[in-house]
Amino acid sequence: MLGRNIQRAHFAIRRVVRTMSTTKWFSETEAMWPGQKFCLAQEEVLFHGKSNFQDVLVFKSQTYGNVLVLDGVIQCTERDEFSYQEMISHLPLYSHANPKSVLIVGGGDGGVLREVAKHPSVEKIVMCEIDPMVCDVSKQFFANTLATTFNDPRLTLMHDDAAAYLRNGNCGKYDVIIVDSSDPVGPAEVLFRSEFYENMKNALNPNGIVCTQGECLWLHLDLIADVLGRVGKFFPTVQYAYTTIPTYPSGQIGFVLCSLDESPNALNKPKRVVDAKTAENLRYYNSKIHEAAFILPSFAEKKIAPVRKSH
Amino acid sequence: MLGRNIQRAHFAIRRVVRTMSTTKWFSETEAMWPGQKFCLAQEEVLFHGKSNFQDVLVFKSQTYGNVLVLDGVIQCTERDEFSYQEMISHLPLYSHANPKSVLIVGGGDGGVLREVAKHPSVEKIVMCEIDPMVCDVSKQFFANTLATTFNDPRLTLMHDDAAAYLRNGNCGKYDVIIVDSSDPVGPAEVLFRSEFYENMKNALNPNGIVCTQGECLWLHLDLIADVLGRVGKFFPTVQYAYTTIPTYPSGQIGFVLCSLDESPNALNKPKRVVDAKTAENLRYYNSKIHEAAFILPSFAEKKIAPVRKSH
Repeated sequence: MLGRNIQRAHFAIRRVVRTMSTTKWFSETEAMWPGQKFCLAQEEVLFHGKSNFQDVLVFKSQTYGNVLVLDGVIQCTERDEFSYQEMISHLPLYSHANPKSVLIVGGGDGGVLREVAKHPSVEKIVMCEIDPMVCDVSKQFFANTLATTFNDPRLTLMHDDAAAYLRNGNCGKYDVIIVDSSDPVGPAEVLFRSEFYENMKNALNPNGIVCTQGECLWLHLDLIADVLGRVGKFFPTVQYAYTTIPTYPSGQIGFVLCSLDESPNALNKPKRVVDAKTAENLRYYNSKIHEAAFILPSFAEKKIAPVRKSH
Repeated sequence: MLGRNIQRAHFAIRRVVRTMSTTKWFSETEAMWPGQKFCLAQEEVLFHGKSNFQDVLVFKSQTYGNVLVLDGVIQCTERDEFSYQEMISHLPLYSHANPKSVLIVGGGDGGVLREVAKHPSVEKIVMCEIDPMVCDVSKQFFANTLATTFNDPRLTLMHDDAAAYLRNGNCGKYDVIIVDSSDPVGPAEVLFRSEFYENMKNALNPNGIVCTQGECLWLHLDLIADVLGRVGKFFPTVQYAYTTIPTYPSGQIGFVLCSLDESPNALNKPKRVVDAKTAENLRYYNSKIHEAAFILPSFAEKKIAPVRKSH
């Protein structure tokens, strides 16, 4: 009996050791996308801590550079982050004729800031990121990729609750507000509420534009249609666009865009061309993909068309 | 000593049992996309066998319906297959003014056949699928989704090597050839060679079109540019388009499209509108997404523009 146990133990240990000796995989928490998960081969944990708001992890991956993870969900990898940062920034900025003042909600990693700063017309950038730890780890582990622009003289960085900041009415006025939030569970939940959109509307200059992280068509179409329907109460123009990005769930992420501009194609056609110098620094965004980003597959179009608003 | 071994065994076995009692995840083979993998929660293996050509697995997933896997790589899930099947079929078919004869290379699951059959102009469909086991398992486990059209009277089904079939010159002429192949490792490797494209060209009627599975921009841009460059020797018009699809690596898959038509926008603008009845049966393809599918992000455009051919 003892002999059999030892033999069983021997095989069991061998199995465990074999598993441990192969690649270590980081697996994403799948609470918001049950039944599927994306994994990255992990070389080394560079940082793991708990802030006052969330679990913060940075690891070095085998093939995607350094990776920032908040509450178990991948936020950025150095290999593909440009797709998200460029699209969430340049879709609203190029839809505006002359953006001078920009509010970034969230965006603590600095990626959206990096993109906003590429627009010479922009004179004032306010960033309201609730969690200082996100900025700190980005400066430490993404110094050459995401956190390149924190010393831009146009920037005012605040560590504050953006929902409260916008509610108190002393936040000033903006041409463009970009909401680079995590998913609507945890600290970002409040950023998906109607009240938040109403307060953003009140903080916009005439023809102002809001662009928020808008989840994935393939996973959360009902949630997206619900948000679009609700924000239509506040904005005359409401659109949905998306970008491809391998390390986000299902490989895409969308954007809810709202504008006070009532002219035709207020959001889905860029108002300015990309100059040659800026184009050299863009890896995803171009004028043609701006327009293409609003063209949806039929299953999504059917659901989104009734709640989209355009003129 | 024995006591310690038994205790260690006890813990090791507990760990293995704990792992086994939680969700079982199917993990994709990552040979062609190192450092990343996509996993689906697996409820039950429905079939697992080895054909003369490849390993064939069908399992029931928790949230994506039944899943077909060849040599460890996901080919179709019932939840998102329509994106791939519709785009690889309707991009070439709607780029043709009046497609009457269609050759499907591979496509043994029946999904492309289902889409081709939606075109009333089509009088003849030849399918050349090397592996009869793929058709068999599709008829058994995807009867209501993929394998719905195998009794279409226009169909001639052959289990043959398409490369040899096209080489021998007795294959007839086609308006559209669709190559629904797996990746260029294993049985499909030959379908990425220049000779195969040359033989396809010779099997086309005037203004004929070839559309092949063209890998993912985010993963295999060099391979894609290489293929486009090589096929440009045979075709006056060569383009690349892509579609989103969550369960393919990085969430997208592309298509290499080649046409004998030298007119402007021979491929990237549809030549026919989708009639209302057909539109009801399409979940991804529409005329606008046809055009949008050819618009590439800047990092890809830079690489593809020099090898694309249009007039």
